[in-house]
Amino acid sequence: MLRPESYACGQWIAPGDTAQEIVGPVSATAIAQAGGTPLDFAAMLEHARTRGGPALRAMTFHQRAGMLKALAGYLDTRKEELYALNPLTGATRQDGAVDIDGGIGTMFLFASKGRREMPDGHVYIEGDIEQLSRKGTFLGQHIAVPLQGVAVHINAFNFPVWGMLEKLAPALLAGVPCIVKPATQTCYLTEACFRMIVESGLLPEGAVQLVIGRTGNLLELLGAQDVVAFTGSADTALMLRQTPGLLRNAVRFTSEQDSLNAAILGPDATPGSAEFDLFVKEAVSEITVKAGQKCTAMRRLIVPEAQVGDVADALADRLGRITIGDPADKATRMGALAGFAQRDDVTARLAQLKAEARVVCGDSAPDLPGAFLSPTLLACADPDAASAVHRVEAFGPVATLLPCRDTAHAARLANAGGGSLVASLFTHDPGVAREVTLHSAAHHGRLYIMNRDSADEATGHGSPLPHMVHGGPGRAGGGEELGGVRGVLHYMQRSAIQGSPDMLTAITGTWVRGSAEKTGPQHPFQRTFGEIEIGETLNTEAREITLEDIEHFARFTGDTFYAHMDEDAAKANPFFPGRVAHGYLLLSFAAGLFVQPDPGPVLANTGLNGLSFQKPVSPGDSIAVRLTCKRKTARTRSYGEVAWNATLTNQHGEQVAEYELLTMVSHDRPAGA
Amino acid sequence: MLRPESYACGQWIAPGDTAQEIVGPVSATAIAQAGGTPLDFAAMLEHARTRGGPALRAMTFHQRAGMLKALAGYLDTRKEELYALNPLTGATRQDGAVDIDGGIGTMFLFASKGRREMPDGHVYIEGDIEQLSRKGTFLGQHIAVPLQGVAVHINAFNFPVWGMLEKLAPALLAGVPCIVKPATQTCYLTEACFRMIVESGLLPEGAVQLVIGRTGNLLELLGAQDVVAFTGSADTALMLRQTPGLLRNAVRFTSEQDSLNAAILGPDATPGSAEFDLFVKEAVSEITVKAGQKCTAMRRLIVPEAQVGDVADALADRLGRITIGDPADKATRMGALAGFAQRDDVTARLAQLKAEARVVCGDSAPDLPGAFLSPTLLACADPDAASAVHRVEAFGPVATLLPCRDTAHAARLANAGGGSLVASLFTHDPGVAREVTLHSAAHHGRLYIMNRDSADEATGHGSPLPHMVHGGPGRAGGGEELGGVRGVLHYMQRSAIQGSPDMLTAITGTWVRGSAEKTGPQHPFQRTFGEIEIGETLNTEAREITLEDIEHFARFTGDTFYAHMDEDAAKANPFFPGRVAHGYLLLSFAAGLFVQPDPGPVLANTGLNGLSFQKPVSPGDSIAVRLTCKRKTARTRSYGEVAWNATLTNQHGEQVAEYELLTMVSHDRPAGA
Repeated sequence: MLRPESYACGQWIAPGDTAQEIVGPVSATAIAQAGGTPLDFAAMLEHARTRGGPALRAMTFHQRAGMLKALAGYLDTRKEELYALNPLTGATRQDGAVDIDGGIGTMFLFASKGRREMPDGHVYIEGDIEQLSRKGTFLGQHIAVPLQGVAVHINAFNFPVWGMLEKLAPALLAGVPCIVKPATQTCYLTEACFRMIVESGLLPEGAVQLVIGRTGNLLELLGAQDVVAFTGSADTALMLRQTPGLLRNAVRFTSEQDSLNAAILGPDATPGSAEFDLFVKEAVSEITVKAGQKCTAMRRLIVPEAQVGDVADALADRLGRITIGDPADKATRMGALAGFAQRDDVTARLAQLKAEARVVCGDSAPDLPGAFLSPTLLACADPDAASAVHRVEAFGPVATLLPCRDTAHAARLANAGGGSLVASLFTHDPGVAREVTLHSAAHHGRLYIMNRDSADEATGHGSPLPHMVHGGPGRAGGGEELGGVRGVLHYMQRSAIQGSPDMLTAITGTWVRGSAEKTGPQHPFQRTFGEIEIGETLNTEAREITLEDIEHFARFTGDTFYAHMDEDAAKANPFFPGRVAHGYLLLSFAAGLFVQPDPGPVLANTGLNGLSFQKPVSPGDSIAVRLTCKRKTARTRSYGEVAWNATLTNQHGEQVAEYELLTMVSHDRPAGA
Repeated sequence: MLRPESYACGQWIAPGDTAQEIVGPVSATAIAQAGGTPLDFAAMLEHARTRGGPALRAMTFHQRAGMLKALAGYLDTRKEELYALNPLTGATRQDGAVDIDGGIGTMFLFASKGRREMPDGHVYIEGDIEQLSRKGTFLGQHIAVPLQGVAVHINAFNFPVWGMLEKLAPALLAGVPCIVKPATQTCYLTEACFRMIVESGLLPEGAVQLVIGRTGNLLELLGAQDVVAFTGSADTALMLRQTPGLLRNAVRFTSEQDSLNAAILGPDATPGSAEFDLFVKEAVSEITVKAGQKCTAMRRLIVPEAQVGDVADALADRLGRITIGDPADKATRMGALAGFAQRDDVTARLAQLKAEARVVCGDSAPDLPGAFLSPTLLACADPDAASAVHRVEAFGPVATLLPCRDTAHAARLANAGGGSLVASLFTHDPGVAREVTLHSAAHHGRLYIMNRDSADEATGHGSPLPHMVHGGPGRAGGGEELGGVRGVLHYMQRSAIQGSPDMLTAITGTWVRGSAEKTGPQHPFQRTFGEIEIGETLNTEAREITLEDIEHFARFTGDTFYAHMDEDAAKANPFFPGRVAHGYLLLSFAAGLFVQPDPGPVLANTGLNGLSFQKPVSPGDSIAVRLTCKRKTARTRSYGEVAWNATLTNQHGEQVAEYELLTMVSHDRPAGA
């Protein structure tokens, strides 16, 4: 008998006298006892707010990303312990891979995004400087900082590991401590993974806590700095959303609900086409993987009228050959539902659907003791008149075929679900992809477009990826998760900072135009990554650009564009007063002006950003360069990236070009230098 | 007697028998009758959804931006009609400028942002391509498309014009039709401006409708594609937020509530400093402009203990000299509150505050018939023990002084308001700015940092700017508005598109790496803006880079960096196999390879984005360029911007550099070409 424990204020808390018994969906016998010990939620929140939050916020984004990478690596070494428990939930090894390896992979991805797309500091810079004043003494910059409260994660029963990790990763990367509340039916698997997290010793005290059992008054205690992220059914979401304290305090509430996801077969995807076969293959997978218990699973298969018969035949044939049974058995293609209550729920909803749709195949329970159900395909003859097929979700191996007349009708039927997590489209016609997107994207958090070109590498209709947002409007909950840094920002507050350039530089750690420039004791290319200061500036001598330079450059490079070579033709061009210097000549001369030729800590110029040529440079003009250290980002133990703001100014003091110069700079001075 | 009318389904609807009488806050007599005619909200929603929405969505972002620019220009020509009504609301001409010119300016700014930061198409591209597969046949791209529903805008009484226009501009730019519901007390001014919008004839039928009077069952009729944007009190927000239909359908509900905004005087801002004087000046302005009826007004003045006396004296002196009276009179510095009910509300809340704070000045009503109130300053001796001063907002010319011990304490007190729209900080010390931001930004939607450097150009603590987000957590409503394109996205759905490169190119209208390349009938530089096609590609010949080229370039430009000149030193560098070509040499040779020298539609190379040097190029290597049209953006009647994806490849087919090349391309061929 498994006895999963809560983890509150640094203590493990065993199930109590009134613990709930969990019946295994395969064995049909009791496998675990859970909950039944009252928890002090106020103390848990206090623990997170006073211990976990400050400890996490003291770290930089890169430090938290490093922590997540180490944690994901640790879990990866122990994942077979989780796979050992996995069949108890009714899931096959393949189902478990989505849950266990999928969860660990999500954490790795957030670690990588944090490292590559967020700064090694405490303030995330969002978007560009806003020029709020003519002279530039008053500017705006949006930033994001971690919320100072607690993230409460309420997870569904179907993905006990992924469900926890996909929420923990972005919250911890943001710097927000978490309280995890798994669904009771599969909480022992969540607890096993959570226990590994604690045992890893990689997270600061108070960063994570676990609630097995009821949430009591937890939500009522939350305030404006807290976040609730919920995954589950629309009914439970509605109940939680109405919690008076959440409404009163405008607590962020993100909801990700199972929805009536559609898959559309394009008009070009006739039988015999690659897309027809891909559609049938993915539909079978969507109906059977996790026994259809995925919030993203295809529920409505929208197929051109002429193809309904062929699709129904192909699906019935494939679904009829699915091996159902003990998920621990390697030959099993589909395991059990997560529990008997879950199966009863599916059966009840199936009855509602059958009032509007006929059974093509399935709708039976195999002769096994557990909570099994055959993969079931329905077909609805009149989807425009139907209501339940667009509204009632049987959260199991069930989908309904709907005929459509044309692409616009298909999109309208997909949208009739009232908002979904994902819709897919199987087509090789770019025009169809564009049309469906314009009609439908407003209704679906994700659009998965599948065809022969992407077939080898596509990740599947039903797989949320950590790079892309997961969530959808209306019936899907109106929330969003994942999506890389977007998912991290759900746990942060955006704030619009207004002030002088020096104030913005101090806050963001990035040099803002107009703020103080410093002169270093040496040429900046002779300074190490650690020595170079934000605002450190080099002002070069000026160099004249002669007509001979321009002609020489043109002959040398082959760039004999008329604006450089032909006075009359250049004058006729609306941008030029006559012959002008090549932009690349200016860039090259600028490098000649600012470079220090000897070996030193600055190792290489790796690129440029946002180069704009702002004013023509005529023969006889001269240019000087100002190079100011704008941003520093550690990359490896040996070196980091230093970004420089470079401006080129002519002899009248007018700026003629600007760009951001990227360099790699060593932490050390080269031997002998 | 003014009789403002509703505008529903293209019809003006006069006040009915049960119209509400509006008493003028200056004259204390009835000035208007409003509402009292039941409206068919279902028909209004249907009108917006079937007429306004499709018409707006048929336009591109640039067309909608052009529409807003024309509309703002039209309102600007008629604004004196609005200024004529303005004193009836109790507001001075200066107060009216924030409302009327501020509203028109906001619309102009959104027109400009739409033109500069959004595409001339129907799909907004958000963020970069996500590389979801190894070979790149399956990619991700986040997009945003307009919601297919209706925006319901519920506005406060204090800014009858700005309140409407600041919500209309982003919604219409997004492509979403609007129903505007102004607060009844000042609805005649909103109606006058709304009538101009209709009379302009610039908006499609069904794009805007107006509700004067009660909203009845309007909110209950909304669904997942609709949005409610509310501005007003926390109590009203809570009531609306609980509407069952909104919760059930996960309808987006944005709330912007008046909050207990704080202003902090920095420890460096002692009497005699510029920042001390700026603090006093802005506090007086915040208390008196609009008679303090601004959701952003300073309510809590947090001042170092040692400075409380000086600040109190300076404020009492200045506030005592404010001329109160008829807002139509030029000598008047402060007009009336918006109505008698508003004044009663302020008085009641003032009583609550006085239980915790003493009166420094004010707290009296001048001997005038209207709804006047003197500017009132309170001082609270123990702000840590106080409750009402952090919770109860007297929405009028009222602020409370709070002493603080140090910067951390000041931040803690600012945060005690439970979330606010804005907090300000008066300091010249960058360290103080950074410390307060890290402690406080999570609690405030905007941080306004003021000092001598920004004083001449700063726009004021209380002024939301269309560039920056306006909103805040918790007590401030948990919502956001404005913030440039961010505010437009509130009316759009983000959707994660996954598919092959060709599918993404078709959907976004921007060439995605890996999708089809086309060869045009001529060199692309000889093709007009209209002729050049997305995906149009030029593949150049290869050119060898010799050691002589490198040495020649080094001497010519002065860039004699050792990596190009010294074999041994270059080898010691972790990035280079030995001497390598200059990055700028590659760029210059690349231009020589792809340029077509004769006059033609391509007028100029205006810049580069995202240049990365990916592999060193050694003497004897050769490079070739592929140039593909990625994106086209119309700019003027004469020309548009064409962005090209450029890659440089060596003789082994390895990519050595990549960038986006920006060019301006004429709509016409030059004469004689």
